[in-house]
Amino acid sequence: STGGGKPKAPPVAHYNLNNVTITSDPLGNRENILLLTPMARFYQQYWDNLLKLSYPHELITLGFILPKTKEGNAATTELQKQIAKTQKSGPEKDRFKSIIILRQDFDPPLQSQDEAERHKIQNQKVRRAAMAKARNSLLFTTLGPATSWVLWLDADVIETPASLIQDLARHNKPVIAPNCFQRFYNTEKKAMDERPYDFNNWQDSPTAVELAKKMGPDDILLEGYADMATYRALMAYMHKADGLRQETVPLDGVGGAALLVKADVHRDGAMFPPFSFYHLIETEGFAKMAKRLGWQPFGLPNYKVYHYNE
Amino acid sequence: STGGGKPKAPPVAHYNLNNVTITSDPLGNRENILLLTPMARFYQQYWDNLLKLSYPHELITLGFILPKTKEGNAATTELQKQIAKTQKSGPEKDRFKSIIILRQDFDPPLQSQDEAERHKIQNQKVRRAAMAKARNSLLFTTLGPATSWVLWLDADVIETPASLIQDLARHNKPVIAPNCFQRFYNTEKKAMDERPYDFNNWQDSPTAVELAKKMGPDDILLEGYADMATYRALMAYMHKADGLRQETVPLDGVGGAALLVKADVHRDGAMFPPFSFYHLIETEGFAKMAKRLGWQPFGLPNYKVYHYNE
Ligand SMILES: Nc1nc2c(ncn2[C@@H]2O[C@H](COP(=O)(O)OP(=O)(O)O)[C@@H](O)[C@H]2O)c(=O)[nH]1
Ligand SMILES: Nc1nc2c(ncn2[C@@H]2O[C@H](COP(=O)(O)OP(=O)(O)O)[C@@H](O)[C@H]2O)c(=O)[nH]1
Ligand SMILES: [Mn+2]
Ligand SMILES: [Mn+2]
Repeated sequence: STGGGKPKAPPVAHYNLNNVTITSDPLGNRENILLLTPMARFYQQYWDNLLKLSYPHELITLGFILPKTKEGNAATTELQKQIAKTQKSGPEKDRFKSIIILRQDFDPPLQSQDEAERHKIQNQKVRRAAMAKARNSLLFTTLGPATSWVLWLDADVIETPASLIQDLARHNKPVIAPNCFQRFYNTEKKAMDERPYDFNNWQDSPTAVELAKKMGPDDILLEGYADMATYRALMAYMHKADGLRQETVPLDGVGGAALLVKADVHRDGAMFPPFSFYHLIETEGFAKMAKRLGWQPFGLPNYKVYHYNE
Repeated sequence: STGGGKPKAPPVAHYNLNNVTITSDPLGNRENILLLTPMARFYQQYWDNLLKLSYPHELITLGFILPKTKEGNAATTELQKQIAKTQKSGPEKDRFKSIIILRQDFDPPLQSQDEAERHKIQNQKVRRAAMAKARNSLLFTTLGPATSWVLWLDADVIETPASLIQDLARHNKPVIAPNCFQRFYNTEKKAMDERPYDFNNWQDSPTAVELAKKMGPDDILLEGYADMATYRALMAYMHKADGLRQETVPLDGVGGAALLVKADVHRDGAMFPPFSFYHLIETEGFAKMAKRLGWQPFGLPNYKVYHYNE
């Protein structure tokens, strides 16, 4: 209680979920965005790109989860340095509504964050399960009653259009993923070039369905591995240089590199399964779960964001 | 920004999930409890029982979700009246840390809340799916980074020991359910009597496993219906008048009438499936999901709480 006076009444909040709009014009309707990033490493370009987002920052809450490894500690320090700069001394228009940083309470299964080690097929199930738990921890503890949209953005997505949020939301889809590419130096062409990076955005194939039928209950299907040819239609390869940026395709699996989700999809219960769910896991399992709840995911093959190149 | 002075820096919160303890002595360790109640009707005895809980109220956050029906509106009005009384004019020790009231943004599938109508087998799947979504909405929007335990308590559970939270937590189980009974007037004995009420706390049976195998992918198993004999071992019938109150039994399905869950179980992703999950739905599906995540649910056959008798 406050000195001398009447004790302060504890807070009571009343939210009518019907009054939280989720529309194709989030900016016009001043809708709250929760931007969530699991972060094992800090990249300055990621932060610089965040700052350039043209959606009003006072409507964006940031949420991070970082592992308790040496790398995770270093990333936390760098992240906090940038946050202090932006929120305290930077221009007012750059400041975000609020920021939540979570430190994971379980050890990541892999000690190394190197791309080669990360992508080994025998490391995938345990790694994707740990990622799923990190995403769920972050989601369950930051989603609020006033959130309209959740934007998942990986810490190594370093370049997006400034109007990313508006561009994805205007399609008014429950779940929507841009196409995640990677810039690299093409030694043959002796020039900068780009290539598809995220293979988790896909449409199902009869081969994958047959493969799944023959699997044990805990086995998972993975995408992008030569020893497990699924013949799924990958959004990564649907990109056309002259294609319309607003073209949409339905998806059965999604990646988490960049993904806009209506908060109601999560509120209904859609999370990232850390176990085999219809032989899918993490973000791909999330797409299946969203579908089971009646929410169809979509992708934008010609709308690109860029992943860091290690 | 505040008039004239320097603009206020927006909030930044840093949480180390490792520092949020979840122990068998929550009171000693001052652990935060999130008490969640889906509420279609308001019962004064439920509120009176809440007020009697001996766990320090300043460590308890209450969360409610109510449907947007006529009954739900009436319940909201009564709930708010009692909240105002407790939080504003009642004794300081009765006041809860904070209270969140959510109004559901989807229509409940059944118009009537009568027990007979609610329990008809053909109404179960759609009703349980709606309940699961209500529980998920409530959970996803109220669970915070500082929550140690989630206590699910139905609005029609009107009598529990005052030490309910301490008694359940001391077993240090990921998920633990007391036995939910109902008082009634026994016309034969011409005296008050009691009978088991909640049949969703059970151990699996070979018959139920065989039944499930023959079902379509979207079909669900239900408990307590004569046309669907599962031969599961029901905790309701494990109660012994002379049994130890602290006796525990492992469970494969749980009910939601009263249920204590370590927050980490939910943070890992355990929610209430609104669809057939291993042919289970809602709280029973939740038990299965907790198990898939490595968390074993338990029950207390001889520790009783009481459900309202309509
Ligand atoms: N909290 C947390 N984040 C992680 C962990 N491992 C990776 N990340 C982050 O999760 C996102 C996806 O992981 P990444 O390894 O880049 O996946 P890839 O690009 O598909 O190989 C990135 O933002 C990583 O920084 C972890 O163990 N814990
Ligand atoms: N938010 C919400 N709560 C509900 C709804 N239907 C029932 N409830 C509440 O959910 C809990 C369980 O429902 P109830 O009908 O009592 O289940 P039963 O005792 O198993 O028949 C109780 O606290 C109800 O008040 C609904 O449509 N929306
Ligand atoms: Mn990456
Ligand atoms: Mn009931």
